[in-house]
Amino acid sequence: MSRFPHGIPLPNGLNTDPPLPADAPTIGFKLNHLCIRVRDLEKSLHFYINLMGMRTVMVTNTGPMTVYFLGYPSTDRHRENLPEFGKETSIPDTTGLLELFHMHGAENKPDGFYGSGNTPPHLGFCHLGFSVPDLPKTLERLREAGVPVVKDIGAASRRDIPITDWENERGVGVEVKGTESEIHPMFKQIFANFAYVQDPEGYYVELLPQGFGA
Amino acid sequence: MSRFPHGIPLPNGLNTDPPLPADAPTIGFKLNHLCIRVRDLEKSLHFYINLMGMRTVMVTNTGPMTVYFLGYPSTDRHRENLPEFGKETSIPDTTGLLELFHMHGAENKPDGFYGSGNTPPHLGFCHLGFSVPDLPKTLERLREAGVPVVKDIGAASRRDIPITDWENERGVGVEVKGTESEIHPMFKQIFANFAYVQDPEGYYVELLPQGFGA
Repeated sequence: MSRFPHGIPLPNGLNTDPPLPADAPTIGFKLNHLCIRVRDLEKSLHFYINLMGMRTVMVTNTGPMTVYFLGYPSTDRHRENLPEFGKETSIPDTTGLLELFHMHGAENKPDGFYGSGNTPPHLGFCHLGFSVPDLPKTLERLREAGVPVVKDIGAASRRDIPITDWENERGVGVEVKGTESEIHPMFKQIFANFAYVQDPEGYYVELLPQGFGA
Repeated sequence: MSRFPHGIPLPNGLNTDPPLPADAPTIGFKLNHLCIRVRDLEKSLHFYINLMGMRTVMVTNTGPMTVYFLGYPSTDRHRENLPEFGKETSIPDTTGLLELFHMHGAENKPDGFYGSGNTPPHLGFCHLGFSVPDLPKTLERLREAGVPVVKDIGAASRRDIPITDWENERGVGVEVKGTESEIHPMFKQIFANFAYVQDPEGYYVELLPQGFGA
């Protein structure tokens, strides 16, 4: 099931990655953004801008859809001058960007028109991961703003770990106590440090404390 | 449908974002990773490591699932010493990371056990976006390695734009020629520069040329 030893976080895995020479054809590649569909652009913007602190890099109303890029201004100058942040941020050269696709008319559709990837039997995408300097304060602030908390800090039971009953019933991700498929106590300890909330569309947002594991 | 004018890429949108003071509670937040479920970890690792050039940051076999973090070594020292790259990369402090969840046993399941988010009626997640220094060469290399190309460089017809018939039949993302819902020629021009491929699980991977729009 896994070629890795049970329970131990392994930096660089088993050190079996191929070398990465200076002339490899992938030098300079960046995983710079991810893109999700949203029905209600304004609700999603409220969450990612007002609550999560992202700002607008670029918007295009293409006609049948609006394409929206968000990012974090990373210098004082950009924080103080958001129009310059937008103008000077090169999308391909910047990591940590979020792209929202709003197909026009989707704002009239009911819950479930798009899926988060976390509702069986339609699993796939798991979550967007954000790291934050002060997780307890962040979670408190989001909770007060009405954001649904899927997993609280400290929670690390079998039910909190994102393996569904639907998968278990199909022999996937099954935990058998006393075997190597048991959830390792070290992982429970680590997992307890994270929290999960849901964005307005229902996507899962993982919140990691910065400085953790340093 | 959209409060933005038709067709024009707007840096910082309409400049209506709230200010971001130096003491805002979100200062320091990072969108640092995204996480997807994969059935066959080895196939996905072949794609993201051997073909896309990522390397292993950290792996944990938690028992019922394996959690795998990948990233791009960004210094010569880390490229030359991948174990140090793994040891010295702080996950919460690093952007552009990819997390793979492999629920043990999923490797025996058929295609469609997990969904990419792009197959109607189960839409949601769109794509992972990578920027690359030389897109034509990259696409040629991936194609030769057997990677399915969903959208080629240059393609920008209505069929290439990721709005599905399923959505159109429900009044979503509909293009009416001669109106403001028509796909704007400027967007077609921009969109022609990108390519889409599929990873081994079926997720869409957008490839952006670096230096574009600079």
